[in-house]
Amino acid sequence: MTEIVTPAPATDDVDAAVRAVAERARVAARPLATATRAVKDAALRACADALEANAADIIAANEKDMARGRDNGLSSGLLDRLALDESRIRGIADALREVAGLPDPVGEIVRGSTLENGLRLKQLRVPMGVVGMIYEARPNVTVDAAGLALKSGNAVILRGGAAALESNTVIVRVLADALEQQGLPRDLVQTVDEYGRPGGVAMMRARGLIDVLVPRGGASLIRTVVEESVVPVIETGTGNVHIFVDASADLEAALPIVMNAKTQRVGVCNAVESLLVHRDVAAEFLPRVAAALAEANVRLHADDASRDAIPGGGSIVAATDDDWATEYLDYDLAVRTVESLDEAIDHIRRYSSGHTEAILTESLKAAEKFVAEVDAAVVMVNASTRFTDGGEFGLGAELGISTQKLHARGPMGLAELTTTKWVVNGDGQARP
Amino acid sequence: MTEIVTPAPATDDVDAAVRAVAERARVAARPLATATRAVKDAALRACADALEANAADIIAANEKDMARGRDNGLSSGLLDRLALDESRIRGIADALREVAGLPDPVGEIVRGSTLENGLRLKQLRVPMGVVGMIYEARPNVTVDAAGLALKSGNAVILRGGAAALESNTVIVRVLADALEQQGLPRDLVQTVDEYGRPGGVAMMRARGLIDVLVPRGGASLIRTVVEESVVPVIETGTGNVHIFVDASADLEAALPIVMNAKTQRVGVCNAVESLLVHRDVAAEFLPRVAAALAEANVRLHADDASRDAIPGGGSIVAATDDDWATEYLDYDLAVRTVESLDEAIDHIRRYSSGHTEAILTESLKAAEKFVAEVDAAVVMVNASTRFTDGGEFGLGAELGISTQKLHARGPMGLAELTTTKWVVNGDGQARP
Repeated sequence: MTEIVTPAPATDDVDAAVRAVAERARVAARPLATATRAVKDAALRACADALEANAADIIAANEKDMARGRDNGLSSGLLDRLALDESRIRGIADALREVAGLPDPVGEIVRGSTLENGLRLKQLRVPMGVVGMIYEARPNVTVDAAGLALKSGNAVILRGGAAALESNTVIVRVLADALEQQGLPRDLVQTVDEYGRPGGVAMMRARGLIDVLVPRGGASLIRTVVEESVVPVIETGTGNVHIFVDASADLEAALPIVMNAKTQRVGVCNAVESLLVHRDVAAEFLPRVAAALAEANVRLHADDASRDAIPGGGSIVAATDDDWATEYLDYDLAVRTVESLDEAIDHIRRYSSGHTEAILTESLKAAEKFVAEVDAAVVMVNASTRFTDGGEFGLGAELGISTQKLHARGPMGLAELTTTKWVVNGDGQARP
Repeated sequence: MTEIVTPAPATDDVDAAVRAVAERARVAARPLATATRAVKDAALRACADALEANAADIIAANEKDMARGRDNGLSSGLLDRLALDESRIRGIADALREVAGLPDPVGEIVRGSTLENGLRLKQLRVPMGVVGMIYEARPNVTVDAAGLALKSGNAVILRGGAAALESNTVIVRVLADALEQQGLPRDLVQTVDEYGRPGGVAMMRARGLIDVLVPRGGASLIRTVVEESVVPVIETGTGNVHIFVDASADLEAALPIVMNAKTQRVGVCNAVESLLVHRDVAAEFLPRVAAALAEANVRLHADDASRDAIPGGGSIVAATDDDWATEYLDYDLAVRTVESLDEAIDHIRRYSSGHTEAILTESLKAAEKFVAEVDAAVVMVNASTRFTDGGEFGLGAELGISTQKLHARGPMGLAELTTTKWVVNGDGQARP
C-alpha cells in the first residue's frame, strides 16, 4: 500500500500523546465493563443510526481519500476496498446492528465449583479493557472493530491505514458523538491516525495501557506488529491453505470443493493456495480439475508429476519451492502430486501457516490421521476451506482469524475479546 | 540471585544451537501429541521412579551446586530452595505421580455444533507443541514443568538458573533416559543451561519453534522475558496483593484471615502485601490486627491515620508511595486507612499487579461492587488470599499464576498448556 509521507512529530511526543489516548481509554472502559447488555446494544444501534444519518459527511471525506489514492497510484483492488457509498455505509451499519443482536459474552461463567473447604469458585468472562487495532485502508474495519470491542465491554484504539485517514476521522467522530449521546464516554472509540506510523509504534509500546493488540492486513504489517510489540498481540490472517485429495476421495465431490475453495473469492485468507493430489488418483483427477481451473482463469504452478498428468501440461508453469510457500491471494494455485498421505502431511507441516487445511477422502482412517497430525487452527474433512469464518462458524461476527496458539485460534468472535476473572466466595476460610 | 560468570559462547552460535534444540523438540513432540493418556501416564510414573532410583547422583550434583552457592554468598533462603535430599526428591517424584493421576486435557471438546448446512464443528484441546520455561534456582521446577508439559502432550525446553546447573543437568538426563526407556523421544525434555544467559535469550528469539515461553521467578526475570521475547509469553507471578477490610466486615473473622494471608507463608505471590481498612472500623480493628501482627514479627508500614489508630503507632514506620507498590515477600505489611469502598477500589486499581485482591465484608452490595470493579486474576470475598493456587483451586497442579489477560489468567494448570483446533466434518459442502 502507498503510505503518504507526512512530516512525523518527534517520537517521544507521539509516545506521550498515544499514552494519553490510552489512559483516557482505560478510564472510559471502566463504566462499560459493568454496563448491562441493554446499554451496550442501545449504544451499538445508536452508532449504526448515526453512521447512516451522517452518510453524506462520511462519503465526502471518503472522496478526498479516493482522490488522493488515485493520485498516489493505489491499485484498483485497494481503491475498491477503500470506497464508501450509501449502500456500503448501510451494510456497515447493519453489521453493527447484527453485533447488537448477539449474546453478550461478558458475565458468562466458564467454570465453577465448590471446594471441599466450602469456597465457591467461579471463572467469569470479563472485558479485556483496552483493545488496540492496527489495520490497513478498509474503513469498514474501523466500524467492525469498534462494534465488537464495545459489545465485549472494551474501549478501542484504532490505527488505520493513512490512505483512509479522512474517512476514518469522520467515522470515529460520528461513533464517539453517538456514544456520548447515549451517556457513554466518547473516549471508548479513539483513533491515533493523526500521528501516522509513529502512532502505531507507540501503541506497540503501551504495555500496561493497551491490553491486547490485533493487527489486521498484509503479511508485512502483521509481522512488524508481532515482532515489535511489547503489548500482547494476537496474530491474524496469513493463510497458506492446502487441500489434499486422498487416494480414496470421491472425485465427483472433490471437484466442486476445490473450485469453490479457489475461485469463490480469491483475495481472502481462507482461499486454497496449494492442491496436493495422491498419485493414485492424479491421472484421473488432475486433468479434470486443471480443465475446470483453466476455465475459471486460474494459473497453475505444478510439479513435474502433475504437469505430466495434465494434457498439455508442458505449458503449465513449473512450481518452485517459493510456490509452496506463497499465499497468492489471486487466481493462482500450486499443484503437487504426492506419494502418500504421509507425504501430504509432511508437505503441509512444512509450508502451512496454520490457518486452514483440508483433506478430501472417503477413508475414515485417513481422515482421522489427517485431523490428528495436521497442526492448524482449522482442519476440514470433505468441505471447502472457505468456511473458516466467524460468521459461517456461527460466532456471529469476527475480528479476524487467529493463526497463533495463544488465547485465540481460528475465527475470533466476541468471546475472544474477553479475558476471565476468578471470583472466590468464602465464609472466613484460611489456608491450613 | 548471584549469577555465575562464565565465558559465554558467541551469540550467533548459541542461537543456532538453541534453534537446533527447538527443532529436535518439535520432532519429539509429534508422537506425543497423539499419544494416549496411558502412554503419557506410564512415562510420568517411570520418570518419578527414575528420580528416586537416581537420588544419589542427583544429591551428589546438588552438593556441588550448594558448595558453589555458599562460595558465591547465596542467601540462606535461596540455598534452602536449591537444596535437595532424599525426602525432597521423593516429594518431587510424588508430584509427578499426582500429575499422572490427573485427567488428560488433550482431546477435550470445548465447543461444538452442527451448522445449518450440515457441517459438524468441534473445537478440541490439542497440545501447544513446544513449551519453553525460564526460571531460577529451584530444581523442583525442572521436574514440575517437565511433568506438566508431558502430560499436556508438549515437549519442554528448560533454562534454569545457573546456581542449579549441576542438579538440573543430572535431573534432565534422568528424565530423558526414563522417557527413552518408555519408547518416547528423549528430546521431549531438554535443557539449554549449558549456554548460560545467551541460551535464554536465544529461546526468546525462537519464534515459530517454541510455541510459548513461561518465565517463573523474580520480577526482573519476568520483566526481561516479557519485554525481550518475540515468542509469545505468559507472564506469571508478581503479586502485590491487597485485603480491604470494609466498614461492615465481621472483625472477628477478619483477623485470622489477615493473619493467614500475611504470615502462613511470606515469600509467595499470594501473600497479602497491603492492608486497607475502612475508617469506620479503623479504631476498632487496627489495634487488634497490629498487636497480632507484631506478635508474629510482621513490620508495619502505615499511613498517618493508621498510625494514629494504633496504640504506640508513633513508632511504626511511615508508609511512602513505594510501600504501596512493593511486593515485600517478607514479614512486612503496608497499612492504609481509606475513606470509602471507592477509595479502596481506586487504591487497588492504582497499585494492583492483577494477581489476587480480597474484600472482607458482610455487605452484599459492597462485595458485588468490589468483585465487579476490581480487575485482577482472582477476586476474593471473605477468604484468605493464600487460596490462589492451582492445587487449592482443584486444577491438580500449577505451572505458575498468570497475571496477564491473554490465554491464561490465574493459576495455570494442564488446560492452560494446551491450545485448541477446530475440526470441521462435511459431505462436500461449498460456500454459496
